[in-house]
Amino acid sequence: MKDKIIISGAGLVGSLWAVFLAKRGYQVEVYERRPDMRKLGGDGGRSINLAMSTRGWKALEKAGIKDEVMETALAMKGRMMHSTTGELTFQAYGKENQAIYSVSRAGLNRKLMDIAESHENVNFHFDMPCTGVNTRSAAIHFKNNISEEKSTLNASFIFATDGAFSAIRSSLQKTPRFNFSQYYLPHGYKELTIPATVSGDFAMDAESLHIWPRGEFMLIALPNPDKSFTCTLFLPFEGKSSFENLNTDEEIMHFFNSYFNDAVPLMPTLLEDFKNNPTSSLVTIKCNPWHLQHKILMLGDASHAIVPFYGQGMNSGFEDCTVLDELATKHKENWSKAIEEFNQTRIENADAISDLAIRNFTEMRDLVGDPMFLLRKKIAAWLHEKYPNDFLPLYSMVTFSNIPYADALKEGKAQDELFEQILSIFDVQKRWNSEEVIRIFEKWLKEKN
Amino acid sequence: MKDKIIISGAGLVGSLWAVFLAKRGYQVEVYERRPDMRKLGGDGGRSINLAMSTRGWKALEKAGIKDEVMETALAMKGRMMHSTTGELTFQAYGKENQAIYSVSRAGLNRKLMDIAESHENVNFHFDMPCTGVNTRSAAIHFKNNISEEKSTLNASFIFATDGAFSAIRSSLQKTPRFNFSQYYLPHGYKELTIPATVSGDFAMDAESLHIWPRGEFMLIALPNPDKSFTCTLFLPFEGKSSFENLNTDEEIMHFFNSYFNDAVPLMPTLLEDFKNNPTSSLVTIKCNPWHLQHKILMLGDASHAIVPFYGQGMNSGFEDCTVLDELATKHKENWSKAIEEFNQTRIENADAISDLAIRNFTEMRDLVGDPMFLLRKKIAAWLHEKYPNDFLPLYSMVTFSNIPYADALKEGKAQDELFEQILSIFDVQKRWNSEEVIRIFEKWLKEKN
Repeated sequence: MKDKIIISGAGLVGSLWAVFLAKRGYQVEVYERRPDMRKLGGDGGRSINLAMSTRGWKALEKAGIKDEVMETALAMKGRMMHSTTGELTFQAYGKENQAIYSVSRAGLNRKLMDIAESHENVNFHFDMPCTGVNTRSAAIHFKNNISEEKSTLNASFIFATDGAFSAIRSSLQKTPRFNFSQYYLPHGYKELTIPATVSGDFAMDAESLHIWPRGEFMLIALPNPDKSFTCTLFLPFEGKSSFENLNTDEEIMHFFNSYFNDAVPLMPTLLEDFKNNPTSSLVTIKCNPWHLQHKILMLGDASHAIVPFYGQGMNSGFEDCTVLDELATKHKENWSKAIEEFNQTRIENADAISDLAIRNFTEMRDLVGDPMFLLRKKIAAWLHEKYPNDFLPLYSMVTFSNIPYADALKEGKAQDELFEQILSIFDVQKRWNSEEVIRIFEKWLKEKN
Repeated sequence: MKDKIIISGAGLVGSLWAVFLAKRGYQVEVYERRPDMRKLGGDGGRSINLAMSTRGWKALEKAGIKDEVMETALAMKGRMMHSTTGELTFQAYGKENQAIYSVSRAGLNRKLMDIAESHENVNFHFDMPCTGVNTRSAAIHFKNNISEEKSTLNASFIFATDGAFSAIRSSLQKTPRFNFSQYYLPHGYKELTIPATVSGDFAMDAESLHIWPRGEFMLIALPNPDKSFTCTLFLPFEGKSSFENLNTDEEIMHFFNSYFNDAVPLMPTLLEDFKNNPTSSLVTIKCNPWHLQHKILMLGDASHAIVPFYGQGMNSGFEDCTVLDELATKHKENWSKAIEEFNQTRIENADAISDLAIRNFTEMRDLVGDPMFLLRKKIAAWLHEKYPNDFLPLYSMVTFSNIPYADALKEGKAQDELFEQILSIFDVQKRWNSEEVIRIFEKWLKEKN
């Protein structure tokens, strides 16, 4: 048996990382703040669906569990936009055979725990919140919520996967020259539901991610295997159209009838859901460094929580596992070296997807209704068809490739400049696939390389 | 007697704010983490000199203590740049009669405490660190370092002036939707000294702030009333020229002889100072909101610590007092309303000076040696002479006016555009005060208004 390794946090990233380490033969001890979610009903607090895409699948494949997860995943091939008058517009995410996949967060988490625990060198310890780090010895403190006992544990390496409100990061924040930011959007979110129809079918197209873009706010819906949709309303906390102004039944119904008229008949429990479900906030966490003494390393939301608008929160956390695993192989399991290189190279990629995710909120709630934006998407898809090796739209780089996020962001900025030129062509609506567009594109391509 | 008010932190801003509140007749209880610095020698940890300018003086005047502080202040009329070969170049900060003033941090702090305590409605409590906030009741926890006793105290209003590592802010950081960032420069600083000469005189010009700009790093020196200079070396922690590479006497002396040759003979205790004095870090703190329940309000470094390169750290903290005092008058001492408006309007100004301070580091360590930069300064001074009402250089807006920092930053950006045009005039070195410059300026002015 190899060294003992501690993982603090049995969420998605912690449970997956346990599988990676188990396969390498380490003794893995996973400590989790909450009770064992597999013994409880419900979803462990957050039921918002996940959109699994290429980076997530790659990590699951490496862990050998892709096929099993794929069984219950639902392909979403594009966005279905709902206008205020109920008109539908479909926009494919990528090529014919490309899709993102709706996956239940709770279901996936349970499955990952089961798979990790099926390795005899993995032990889970529940009801054991981490309460902080001794930043000199790099040992971590736990409290047993059942016995109230406190303990300080050590191991060869410790991985902090304790999420956006990481207790380990709270301790690291007080160490010298630790850069840190927490930024909250002025928007919150609330989950609602569209159940299956009486005849037991999906109430809307099941192969789409549905969006009701309304400028400052939006509603989205993702399909579930039980033929319901999980809906999420993203709305400012304060201001004219805001959570603070939706209190009475009349206010709530008037708001939904005004903006989401076609969805209201599909939501029989709208009022109860709206009043009973919590309003959650949307935080972005950045920090640097991600490690302490090359011995404690943060992964996933603990070091880089992002907003959900690019569908990359879990995908980027899973990619952490892929990248770190590759570095462990490269450095022959000299983990200090792997952690050093991970810290040197991964942070800029996390920062990039963090910025892209915030930017995509504007796209989803506002731009997807804009004709010029849709035209840009059309031209981008056309250029990608014509120049498959030289032009990959930003969305595809992020969602359907493993190109480092920072490279994707950089290429995306170059593409912004390209489209600034293309979209200023006179009468571009009619000439979107003209020789002139090709000329501009080829000049841009030549200058870029 | 009016309500009881608690101030946590008896540094510069806390002590000054105690004077403001005392004059309004409140019962002011000031709690300070450290022992009474007036009973100890030394400087309470940080001896770096302060550069008092217009905003600082305005606050001191309002508190009625300007004249007393001015007695020991030393006017610095400009920057004295030292080249690697020891050539000196002087650059005035403003007009003939304008200067910034070197003031001892420790001396000023002691004086402010004395003045605050001379009011019978002010009490200081030393050795009483704040350990956090009960964020529901908005009461604060203290520990008595002598008796080890813990207490939870409440008051009508609580002002947190407990500095860049504020314990109160640490608690607020955990409240919902609290935006926060701490950012460290890759540079640290170390204090050194140039004593008075054997004949008891200043070793260099006493009416200047001396700068040895060396690109990635710099040395500065400010005069003291005892005719010594306090020097500060700003240098990266890591890299080629860095603190981590200055360990042996040989390395230290070689570095100083290479870059600060003319200063070395003036620093007889250079090696001891370098090895004994700590290397400190440079943090920028931003957060939002600055208050809890309109009852606890952070002022000064607690909510907006900045780097020292614009000489505005203390000045901006003192301006907090001026602005809040004016709002208290405006709202007839309805402090909740004053705190609300302060929070709404002051944060963008703090953010602006924070960004300007980081930007000015580049100016001080690098640009002040650049001929084009010096030319820009010359043209700016000339334009200000010709158009005193329409053109005030950014440095003057920040240092010699009470224009809100955010407005100064905005105007500064407009001036950047102006100088981009002016400095691209052919042969501008010879034609810096030509008709063409005036034409460009007047066009810019017209478009701006």
